[in-house]
Amino acid sequence: MTLQAVGIHQLSRPISIRTKEGTIQQSIATVDLHVHMVHGDKDSCIEQIIPLLGTYTEDLHVGILPTLLREVKQQLQAEEARMSFTFPYFIQKVAPVSGTTSIMEYQCRITGSSEPNPSPRLSVTVPLTTLCPCSKEISEFGAHNQRAQVTLTVQPSGFIWLEDLIRLIEQCGSCEVYALLKRPDEKFVTEKAYNTPMFVEDVARKVTMELRKRKEIDWFSVEVESFESIHKHSAYAYIDSKDLDSSCC
Amino acid sequence: MTLQAVGIHQLSRPISIRTKEGTIQQSIATVDLHVHMVHGDKDSCIEQIIPLLGTYTEDLHVGILPTLLREVKQQLQAEEARMSFTFPYFIQKVAPVSGTTSIMEYQCRITGSSEPNPSPRLSVTVPLTTLCPCSKEISEFGAHNQRAQVTLTVQPSGFIWLEDLIRLIEQCGSCEVYALLKRPDEKFVTEKAYNTPMFVEDVARKVTMELRKRKEIDWFSVEVESFESIHKHSAYAYIDSKDLDSSCC
Amino acid sequence: MTLQAVGIHQLSRPISIRTKEGTIQQSIATVDLHVHMVHGDKDSCIEQIIPLLGTYTEDLHVGILPTLLREVKQQLQAEEARMSFTFPYFIQKVAPVSGTTSIMEYQCRITGSSEPNPSPRLSVTVPLTTLCPCSKEISEFGAHNQRAQVTLTVQPSGFIWLEDLIRLIEQCGSCEVYALLKRPDEKFVTEKAYNTPMFVEDVARKVTMELRKRKEIDWFSVEVESFESIHKHSAYAYIDSKDLDSSCC
Amino acid sequence: MTLQAVGIHQLSRPISIRTKEGTIQQSIATVDLHVHMVHGDKDSCIEQIIPLLGTYTEDLHVGILPTLLREVKQQLQAEEARMSFTFPYFIQKVAPVSGTTSIMEYQCRITGSSEPNPSPRLSVTVPLTTLCPCSKEISEFGAHNQRAQVTLTVQPSGFIWLEDLIRLIEQCGSCEVYALLKRPDEKFVTEKAYNTPMFVEDVARKVTMELRKRKEIDWFSVEVESFESIHKHSAYAYIDSKDLDSSCC
Repeated sequence: MTLQAVGIHQLSRPISIRTKEGTIQQSIATVDLHVHMVHGDKDSCIEQIIPLLGTYTEDLHVGILPTLLREVKQQLQAEEARMSFTFPYFIQKVAPVSGTTSIMEYQCRITGSSEPNPSPRLSVTVPLTTLCPCSKEISEFGAHNQRAQVTLTVQPSGFIWLEDLIRLIEQCGSCEVYALLKRPDEKFVTEKAYNTPMFVEDVARKVTMELRKRKEIDWFSVEVESFESIHKHSAYAYIDSKDLDSSCC
Repeated sequence: MTLQAVGIHQLSRPISIRTKEGTIQQSIATVDLHVHMVHGDKDSCIEQIIPLLGTYTEDLHVGILPTLLREVKQQLQAEEARMSFTFPYFIQKVAPVSGTTSIMEYQCRITGSSEPNPSPRLSVTVPLTTLCPCSKEISEFGAHNQRAQVTLTVQPSGFIWLEDLIRLIEQCGSCEVYALLKRPDEKFVTEKAYNTPMFVEDVARKVTMELRKRKEIDWFSVEVESFESIHKHSAYAYIDSKDLDSSCC
Repeated sequence: MTLQAVGIHQLSRPISIRTKEGTIQQSIATVDLHVHMVHGDKDSCIEQIIPLLGTYTEDLHVGILPTLLREVKQQLQAEEARMSFTFPYFIQKVAPVSGTTSIMEYQCRITGSSEPNPSPRLSVTVPLTTLCPCSKEISEFGAHNQRAQVTLTVQPSGFIWLEDLIRLIEQCGSCEVYALLKRPDEKFVTEKAYNTPMFVEDVARKVTMELRKRKEIDWFSVEVESFESIHKHSAYAYIDSKDLDSSCC
Repeated sequence: MTLQAVGIHQLSRPISIRTKEGTIQQSIATVDLHVHMVHGDKDSCIEQIIPLLGTYTEDLHVGILPTLLREVKQQLQAEEARMSFTFPYFIQKVAPVSGTTSIMEYQCRITGSSEPNPSPRLSVTVPLTTLCPCSKEISEFGAHNQRAQVTLTVQPSGFIWLEDLIRLIEQCGSCEVYALLKRPDEKFVTEKAYNTPMFVEDVARKVTMELRKRKEIDWFSVEVESFESIHKHSAYAYIDSKDLDSSCC
């Protein structure tokens, strides 16, 4: 007797997501679906799974994940159903000095499993600037800086907005990243980054400290990758909340 | 006190691998390196890690991973060191009827951690053909088939050749894949695939059965992705050896 | 004096596209923008270009490309402005026997240049099945088949729907590809593909023949890539309409 | 009558390249091969092309491209044969102050066509640092900088080393990029970049000026993409030598 997962990968679907502002945002998700089945008297023609999925994805939001997973599990008489939706999400940002607005894209992911209980995980990948403390300290002027990206994955006990996770992360780098900056904004972000030098590990720790203030997060991991401007490789840091002391970070 | 990982991602290096035939194969690896450190009295300038790595990668093979990890851990006074090398590997294949030879590329990965003990894991990704049993059964002639890929990851208790893992997988699909086939070979693989219909879950189970005969494998996972010729998405199956009964599969 | 292009790459934006059915489809485009400028008395701070772009992309469709390009050119006092929008587009398909509907994704691209005149080009990438004539002919049963993709780029003299280009291509392979097929559909597509063997070059020629019937196409190129099920590499064919005889294909 | 290209894409092969130092470097190429044929009395089973390719790729270098293309053309009775090899290439670099050595990877490409004559083109993609002149000028301290990459493609009239093209480009940015820097080196590159502010268009022009001193280059294009540290998109510049005045740049 073998417990094994079968499923579908790389299915692309239009989805709708409710925004914190109360509107509906249209996006496009890559869907992966796995069901765990005990191999035995029945063979799953994988095709069975798709029509069920079709009835949900035309108007999807995070809240329906538990119902969707339960129905997949039931219909296929499976032991467990898992699903992930990976999609871009857009937020309007306001430039720090000029107040000019522009739209930024963030990669997001919602994953859920029917077992042991269908508490979804949310991931957001957020670009920001890191400015190297070592470079600043040893140099008479300037400091190397670069685009970095933070991938935060959380398992919340209650509801949480993608906007809140993204906003939290954006305040934890040397500076935020924008789609559009006027000259006074560019001066601001340049000087702000220079005044806030951070290694990738500093960013990971700052995100961790902010998350520990949130009671509604049961578990999280923070991954920071910095596309170093002086190298061809990346600097990397990672923290998993289960490795943390109860005291502090 | 925070235990966190810091490291380097996407470092590209020439490497040398010993082949089963006794030769040395030159390849190119993407290296990821993480060390787990307790944040406190010292701040790791990530740069420290690279020179150490440099002394090994100019002539690397699997056997040196434990020594390399121990040295990284020691030099950085870390709690744990982890490393992965991802690289293409080439094997000469013989066409089934004509005997024509050609070279096939396989993506491989070696990962290791200094803790609890430095037993490396090996991964190989192997292309093969799957022919749909459902399509064959219901159609008067023909059957849809496609390229699929199997990713096997093993934790061996002793030494194991990449060649042996690759060979094992290639015999578990509807048919093998080759870089070069003459007409009698093409007839052979077409008919062989038609005579050996397999769903992705059948491939995963067959690989599992073969691996359970091998005493030197402590743990493994099998992942099969089939790039369906009648869909734009993939069919997928996964088995983890820890979910298996002691009886059989 | 140097004529050079400056611009922005990989800007991600929500866009709206009018569908043939009369609705508006929301999608997400990757935008590339180049302007050709004579280097001399002025230095373009690239940032100038973004606000202008912002006023258009919140409600974009193909028809505004000429106006947008003219305005970019004018505002930057450039010699020429070029822009491309690459985005997924969804069309509902009906399964051939059961009539079941499902949504398929197609990668599309619109590119335009202000010079010599702003006639946009459209590209669509469409998946389909190819079944090898050689394999069918030499084998007693079965025939290898696989997913292939056709990328058609056209320069139309008048308006043309993405839907019409996609539909034209889908009828030029061994069989169409669907997101959802019931058993009678799977029987149909299996047998249809077996009855319609085509090499990549056959697909390219059939698309070419269909396009030559269309008076509204000034120029086109057809690219076919087939992810061979018996190899790890692809088979490829390409036709450019300017290499064609006036007689026939 | 249709002139069309047929071929093979994404074939992976080990290759050998002669280095400027006189050694042989092992690398791995992705090979694309197209032949232009007039469709008519014969149908090319694409498989014919592969064995021929096999006899060359086991020991390949730039010099054999004309012979290889001529033989492909002849054997297939084609009008034209085209081929490209894309591969990573490694060069040992010396850090600017400490003299520490480290290995850097560069993506390279060799393409050739049998018609009108088999003069190969070489491409190299080289990472470097750009530091924004605008940001430096308007800020009291600091300046945003980032990793950028230059892709240079040349059609040389005579022999040219990949090393010489790479070296030429590395001297045209705000600063070079290294795999390994000690503290005095990091101080050096930080200050050098701050003292050498350059937009992407400045880098493109500087590469252009250097290339125009080289008599052995018949044609070239320069493409610069800068992964802006203050944005999520890239800044881009492009120069094609055929758009240049005879006077200067």
